[in-house]
Amino acid sequence: MVKRYLKVKSLADVMTLLKTSFTCIPSVEYVKLEDSVGRITATPIIARYSVPEIHLAAMDGISVKTESTSCASEQNPITLKDAIRINTGNVVPRDYDAVIMIEDVWAEGDSFTIRKAAAPWQHIRPAGEDIGELEMVLPSRHKIRPHELGALAAYGITEVEVLTINVGLIPTGSELVNQGSRPKPGQVVESNTVMATAILTSVGAKCTRYPMVRDDPSLIRKAISKAIIENEIVIVSAGSSAGTKDFTADAILNLGEVLVHGIAIKPGKPAIIGRITGKPVIGMPGYPLSALTVLREIISPLLELYGLTFPNPETVNARLTSTIHKDIGTDEFVLCATGKVGDHWVISPLSRGAGVQMSAVRANAYLKVPNQLEGFETGENVESTLMVSRDEAEQALLITGSHDPVLDHLANMLRRTGIDLHSTHAGSMGGILALKKDECHAAPMHLLAKDGSYNTQYLKKYLPGENLILVCVAGRQQGIVSRNGISFKEIRNYTFVNRQKGSGTRMLLDFELKKAGMNPSIICGYDREVTTHLAVALAVKSGEADAGICVYSAAKSLGLQFVPISQERYELVIRKAHMDDPRVKALIDTVASQEFKEILSSLGGYDTTETGVQHELP
Amino acid sequence: MVKRYLKVKSLADVMTLLKTSFTCIPSVEYVKLEDSVGRITATPIIARYSVPEIHLAAMDGISVKTESTSCASEQNPITLKDAIRINTGNVVPRDYDAVIMIEDVWAEGDSFTIRKAAAPWQHIRPAGEDIGELEMVLPSRHKIRPHELGALAAYGITEVEVLTINVGLIPTGSELVNQGSRPKPGQVVESNTVMATAILTSVGAKCTRYPMVRDDPSLIRKAISKAIIENEIVIVSAGSSAGTKDFTADAILNLGEVLVHGIAIKPGKPAIIGRITGKPVIGMPGYPLSALTVLREIISPLLELYGLTFPNPETVNARLTSTIHKDIGTDEFVLCATGKVGDHWVISPLSRGAGVQMSAVRANAYLKVPNQLEGFETGENVESTLMVSRDEAEQALLITGSHDPVLDHLANMLRRTGIDLHSTHAGSMGGILALKKDECHAAPMHLLAKDGSYNTQYLKKYLPGENLILVCVAGRQQGIVSRNGISFKEIRNYTFVNRQKGSGTRMLLDFELKKAGMNPSIICGYDREVTTHLAVALAVKSGEADAGICVYSAAKSLGLQFVPISQERYELVIRKAHMDDPRVKALIDTVASQEFKEILSSLGGYDTTETGVQHELP
Repeated sequence: MVKRYLKVKSLADVMTLLKTSFTCIPSVEYVKLEDSVGRITATPIIARYSVPEIHLAAMDGISVKTESTSCASEQNPITLKDAIRINTGNVVPRDYDAVIMIEDVWAEGDSFTIRKAAAPWQHIRPAGEDIGELEMVLPSRHKIRPHELGALAAYGITEVEVLTINVGLIPTGSELVNQGSRPKPGQVVESNTVMATAILTSVGAKCTRYPMVRDDPSLIRKAISKAIIENEIVIVSAGSSAGTKDFTADAILNLGEVLVHGIAIKPGKPAIIGRITGKPVIGMPGYPLSALTVLREIISPLLELYGLTFPNPETVNARLTSTIHKDIGTDEFVLCATGKVGDHWVISPLSRGAGVQMSAVRANAYLKVPNQLEGFETGENVESTLMVSRDEAEQALLITGSHDPVLDHLANMLRRTGIDLHSTHAGSMGGILALKKDECHAAPMHLLAKDGSYNTQYLKKYLPGENLILVCVAGRQQGIVSRNGISFKEIRNYTFVNRQKGSGTRMLLDFELKKAGMNPSIICGYDREVTTHLAVALAVKSGEADAGICVYSAAKSLGLQFVPISQERYELVIRKAHMDDPRVKALIDTVASQEFKEILSSLGGYDTTETGVQHELP
Repeated sequence: MVKRYLKVKSLADVMTLLKTSFTCIPSVEYVKLEDSVGRITATPIIARYSVPEIHLAAMDGISVKTESTSCASEQNPITLKDAIRINTGNVVPRDYDAVIMIEDVWAEGDSFTIRKAAAPWQHIRPAGEDIGELEMVLPSRHKIRPHELGALAAYGITEVEVLTINVGLIPTGSELVNQGSRPKPGQVVESNTVMATAILTSVGAKCTRYPMVRDDPSLIRKAISKAIIENEIVIVSAGSSAGTKDFTADAILNLGEVLVHGIAIKPGKPAIIGRITGKPVIGMPGYPLSALTVLREIISPLLELYGLTFPNPETVNARLTSTIHKDIGTDEFVLCATGKVGDHWVISPLSRGAGVQMSAVRANAYLKVPNQLEGFETGENVESTLMVSRDEAEQALLITGSHDPVLDHLANMLRRTGIDLHSTHAGSMGGILALKKDECHAAPMHLLAKDGSYNTQYLKKYLPGENLILVCVAGRQQGIVSRNGISFKEIRNYTFVNRQKGSGTRMLLDFELKKAGMNPSIICGYDREVTTHLAVALAVKSGEADAGICVYSAAKSLGLQFVPISQERYELVIRKAHMDDPRVKALIDTVASQEFKEILSSLGGYDTTETGVQHELP
């Protein structure tokens, strides 16, 4: 029988529970000044001495007593008897109270003539000008900024007492292998505690990653009892669900209390909050994006209760490009790509699979869909939390449409100019839709019309009258990929892997099938869909399918056979209104660059004759 | 004779010169994945294998071939012959193409009955769902975020090739002492290369701090020739001016070229840009804030040419609280405190002395006053660059007025709630002015009227009809501080140190002098002004003056004698309109707290009877 979560708690209730269930007293440690950047002061930092400790000359010149200069004027030059030559930074002699710049002095040996009276304290850096002994330099709970190290060093501070907290991380799961080992089928690299360590260390926590523990209740219990002694917080990675191999909750219950098992968030529902000897023990779910959500929504706020504060992310209001459905009663967090198209922000949800870590890599924002809602509608303006600075988000270049491996190369080249290419693989028709709704900067496509032309017929039909610029990326070869040289005519005899509906490549296949009088239903695997050329080639390489349809470069990169079907025109379509956008300009320049053509040539299967060529519609 | 800069170059010209004078090829290094957060990728990161490499069950259940389930329905349950029990994460057996959740299965031993057909690929994580072998995980020139370490670890990445640049830092100056040594009069702790290292390391530079070199041309030359071999960039700290002990320019000229000596920026004018064996050598001025400006305006942009990018700071438009005058032809950078009062941002310049490092500690923003302007006027709206996040700047609580040592304690207590107290020591009258212009959240003051009352008479006069709340901080004792118990009556016989005009403490002194029939002109040092109580006490402790006027706590903290003059009412005055501001609420709560009263008592000289008591005007 499958165990159920006894009682799923809302995120809001969990926040209250964290505050009331733990005392949250941080540890402190002394770190060398050089290592203190970004750390949070545990106590106020007090200057050990005044800077300067004594009056200093602020200029090269002579030190004087102002009363002996008072009668000097252009008409009445005075030769001083008691003036003393002094350089910037030298100590002003006792009873002297001003410095006259050397430029204003006529010097002959030790005799100095002046033509202007000195004002008291002129050109002197008085004792304590910068800071006085015992003055507070920084309060406690201050996050030290890099440039502050100059002042702290100058004031005699060589080490700083900062907040920390010891966090023990226990990876559990018999399927885990250590970093650096190549996982066998069904194994996974233990990565969640690596991620957790990186996130928690960034605010000053000291993380200890304990050895991996296999799915054995007594071993897990043993690991927790050791870690709870050595740390203020323990995080048990995985095993927090309610399946037959999920032992975390029982282990915590055995050693203390389970306060929460199941939180109404998605991803991340199977999280556990326990308490052992007064200390929090968190069960962090095993799916990477569940773990990430629990780290951000549960564990980070817990650390903040100890004074280890995370920077508050920025938010933007953005127009949602596709509907998000969810169940009422759960706060759902959706990773997204956001960017500014023209003068409006748009935001596109990424894959919501809890195992798809690439969503976290690709995301520059996320949405929280609150528990009382069933979702958000396409076109709705939603508050979006940025995972980068606003400035970086403004550098996002949104590309929506047909996928090609060269998009990665464009992304790579554009990064040099600070631009972040976000590519959504929506297929050529998806690109047309995004263009229509003005939700991307450029839409790559390769849509073959009956007259043999590419793209223009579709654009005229779906975007009539719009001013568009088409930029040719390349002519590219599509064909049948296989391990042993299967041709298009033979595919009916083999298992096949297809592309998603709306992709130009699938439309090409359908076009060719129709031309050849072949019924799709006879192709075994026609309904098996993947979304990139490389994914097609990988399915063939792994033996899942015998054949598929993709571009030459994808077949070549995996060392597979390729039998061409046709050459097509792969173009970027851009609204003319965006042609002056610096990101779009950089994109077009990159496509037209010699370096890019050379990359296309080295990949193979691309005809670069027309690369970079523009034409305009209508 | 004093040397002059040959030709001062504008900042804009220097930026062009940097781009055209150096090739700027960064170094690369491999770092362990765990150490890669915040580093910038030198090459694209490519997945070593697909994740998952093979189809996995996404649920606990049974793996099935969909064709054998197709006839199942509620009316027609089917008992499967070839189904296999499978758990989440297990490999789906070859030729099986779906998983049915265990909840939907009636199991008896190895016999499984279902009442619903399975859809192809349901509850399966297909091979490559997360990422495909050879797919690009991250482009080059990407700054690695903490949470991305999870994905990278999962994809088999154990080390990352990142950009770096070797920067050699040479501190020069005979007045320097090492960190940890207490400087003798006229000595300073070498802190500029500590600050530079912290700033440059934050973007991935590898900084080497060479031993300090005294002011000796041949030693400086020798240090540079060694550093230029071992690094891509060399920074020579101090000695870059045109004084008799400034040898940096000559040393660079001796080994290569001086491209620029003197940049039209303030602070930072005496900067040098040289080139030795094609590499940049920067002469960084010795005054700490000059060094900071050169680091931010010259050296950081230089590092960006090597691909080591700094985060772009945020900006706000803020109302300037005091006029800034400057010379035409120089870009001047002014450190400031900014905050949001009501719905407008205000910004106040801090001390512009290039030696006042505390300005950099206190600042949360800076202004650039462009070279073609003579300055900015009070009340002008100016673009202000934040030195913290916008969110942190919004937590700034601006206090302008009379100084008291307890403000540091309030700052310290308020930091726990995330609030940043910025205190401007403008004196009580300065506080009234700031209140009038609505440029602070609260104004501390202690203004004695002829009727013996505090503050209200002045507020009625200068802010007639305004709704104000007065919150009593404490009754506090003012008196004469000295090394040997000088009383008020005796001060005419000694040297004195006074407070600045407009401060309530100076007004108290004047009041008492008048009452006693003493003429200020007979007080030696009446015109010597400092701006805090502690500065008065320090001047007395150091022997600069024999006596001064300050609060008891300042005298006590330095172990000095104190002869009381009077007890006064030190109050915070707040516009009623700001009483609902969370920062103001936190301030008032803190003043009224038991903890604060205990601090007052331990400092001594404060009467806490009325602490926290509010009254309202009019």
